[in-house]
Amino acid sequence: MEWIGDALRKVREKRPLVHNITNYVVMNETANALLALGASPVMAHAIEEVGEMVSIADSLVINIGTLSPPWIASMEKAVKAASELGKPVVLDPVGAGATKLRTSTAMKLLEMGDISVIRGNFGEISALLGEHGKTRGVDSAEYSLESASQLAERAAGEFGTVVAVTGPVDFVSDGKRTYAVENGHKLLGKVTGTGCMATAITGAFLAVEEPLKATVSALVTFEVAAELASEAKYPGTFHVRLYDYLYAIDSETVVRMAKVRGV
Amino acid sequence: MEWIGDALRKVREKRPLVHNITNYVVMNETANALLALGASPVMAHAIEEVGEMVSIADSLVINIGTLSPPWIASMEKAVKAASELGKPVVLDPVGAGATKLRTSTAMKLLEMGDISVIRGNFGEISALLGEHGKTRGVDSAEYSLESASQLAERAAGEFGTVVAVTGPVDFVSDGKRTYAVENGHKLLGKVTGTGCMATAITGAFLAVEEPLKATVSALVTFEVAAELASEAKYPGTFHVRLYDYLYAIDSETVVRMAKVRGV
Amino acid sequence: MEWIGDALRKVREKRPLVHNITNYVVMNETANALLALGASPVMAHAIEEVGEMVSIADSLVINIGTLSPPWIASMEKAVKAASELGKPVVLDPVGAGATKLRTSTAMKLLEMGDISVIRGNFGEISALLGEHGKTRGVDSAEYSLESASQLAERAAGEFGTVVAVTGPVDFVSDGKRTYAVENGHKLLGKVTGTGCMATAITGAFLAVEEPLKATVSALVTFEVAAELASEAKYPGTFHVRLYDYLYAIDSETVVRMAKVRGV
Repeated sequence: MEWIGDALRKVREKRPLVHNITNYVVMNETANALLALGASPVMAHAIEEVGEMVSIADSLVINIGTLSPPWIASMEKAVKAASELGKPVVLDPVGAGATKLRTSTAMKLLEMGDISVIRGNFGEISALLGEHGKTRGVDSAEYSLESASQLAERAAGEFGTVVAVTGPVDFVSDGKRTYAVENGHKLLGKVTGTGCMATAITGAFLAVEEPLKATVSALVTFEVAAELASEAKYPGTFHVRLYDYLYAIDSETVVRMAKVRGV
Repeated sequence: MEWIGDALRKVREKRPLVHNITNYVVMNETANALLALGASPVMAHAIEEVGEMVSIADSLVINIGTLSPPWIASMEKAVKAASELGKPVVLDPVGAGATKLRTSTAMKLLEMGDISVIRGNFGEISALLGEHGKTRGVDSAEYSLESASQLAERAAGEFGTVVAVTGPVDFVSDGKRTYAVENGHKLLGKVTGTGCMATAITGAFLAVEEPLKATVSALVTFEVAAELASEAKYPGTFHVRLYDYLYAIDSETVVRMAKVRGV
Repeated sequence: MEWIGDALRKVREKRPLVHNITNYVVMNETANALLALGASPVMAHAIEEVGEMVSIADSLVINIGTLSPPWIASMEKAVKAASELGKPVVLDPVGAGATKLRTSTAMKLLEMGDISVIRGNFGEISALLGEHGKTRGVDSAEYSLESASQLAERAAGEFGTVVAVTGPVDFVSDGKRTYAVENGHKLLGKVTGTGCMATAITGAFLAVEEPLKATVSALVTFEVAAELASEAKYPGTFHVRLYDYLYAIDSETVVRMAKVRGV
């Protein structure tokens, strides 16, 4: 798994500009996670400027966690612009399945442009396939280890993208190859926006690596940082240490601690 | 005061889904406070989805700290939906008295639906009663221990809700019974959004307990966590430790440290 | 440089109400920085209330980091109101040069009201002068120590304001006098919103001191706090300690550690 360490090295060398159209709750967190990692975040959501911003960015992160119609219009415009310019895009369908607005917005974005990667939990990805994903708010209420791997593969085939179904074990698939990532820590579930941070970091890796490897590398890097940060036993301090380790972690440590296997 | 500890236990067992329509400044903080406590937050503000989100939520938190007309419309729709569905609602009238928009929005929300609890500072609650509440921005510029208790009782009677007037001592009243809560720490005033966090946590307790006891339990739990967090002498570290203690605190500790008395 | 310490003392005595119309990413951070310092922040962006809020505030902070047309209209109204009422205004032209929307909005705000201070990086201030400011997202991609001082002086002359061009060395000029501030720490570049925090804190000092001295005092205070916070080697903990030191720092320490010289 040396390529995971190589991908992290490339992120820090390139310092990619990652354009985020994301939700209000996590903006600060995803910006700080990207900066700590070594990337350069920019947030811009006005339809008047998203086209220009995409054109100077290295990748685009779309996160539907706090939608409204003007933001949806901007997301659509940005996804189209990125597709035309060949810039990679990662989509986080936060809360798909919880409300029609979220499910339909995610679906529309998938239809109108080239999405490189979708990262969501079991309920969210299920909802995109029209399956009974018992989404409970923005948290996944149901998670099946047995079916998560198949879900990732099926969704990847259906949408022609890489799909990451994250949970206790993450499954990342391009429809043909599927990786399982077994890193992470339960305190990630006690801090808001950790899934969104994983998505944003995937955006940084997409600027330097092809989508399947980029996504696995991003999840491993983020989750190894979380494992190190879990020396703090409680969520407030854990959250702070997560940024510390995103900054301090080196490629050797990530490779050494990576728990990745082909499925 | 065993019921305070029982309420906390119930929150952690039920893990209620708390729908927040709140202000931009504190969204991240209130989400993290709810997660740390053991509840499940969701933020959604689009008028297209607030009805659905209320229907799957266990309670609703409305906080007017950064208003604009589309958000007001969504708050109105959400409060109506919650009233129809019998879901408890807590209102935080941030900055009522500082501008007409805030005072009138809070008043309109109170008129159009069943609000279970109002939590504000002395100036804000005074403003709702049309009294000369010398609100200074969103902070209360005036606080009278002698009159705060009466204000809580009077406002509770006027609006037919539970009212919490928080400050050095908090007074919580349903118009008949009034409790004084003497927990808390002055560093809470040096971190933004601590009042909003108290309101959000009240939303979690409203999902498991009747409004008067829920509000007292929420304030005591939050403020005992703050007392423990004040081992950090400075606001940055205090803020981080506040999440740690919201997560780590147990019912026994809350009951032991509670400073609650009937008025 | 005793006047720097005096300015900090005055901020804490007056506890100015600082009205911020700022970007979503940093709202929480700037509110917490102002509170830790000893000022009182308020955020309000609705055109229906910005006039009233400006009238009760001691100063106004405008930050264009996440623009959209309704926010621009409110910024314009607030700047006009502040000009009419003689309240000091600091403008942070985040990302000017990156998109037309940002550059033109900053220019329009400069034309329509009395801006006291502009604080930006080299690329942003260059863009305001119509010069080839190679802005890369919201981070300055180019920085020339030799030209930064001249840029500050030139921009100050052009716009009739105080201009701070911040970077490894900050240059603050009113067009006649220019100060160099050599405090700060490289970890500031690894936390989002630190420039925005410096701007917000400038807003607090503007309530108690004339613009040139207020800006130098704000930058020195903020950057000395950052130097102290850098005992934490990593960005997460550094960020937390930054608030701690904004709260704990005293005037004597600021004056002793200040690295300020006339240019």
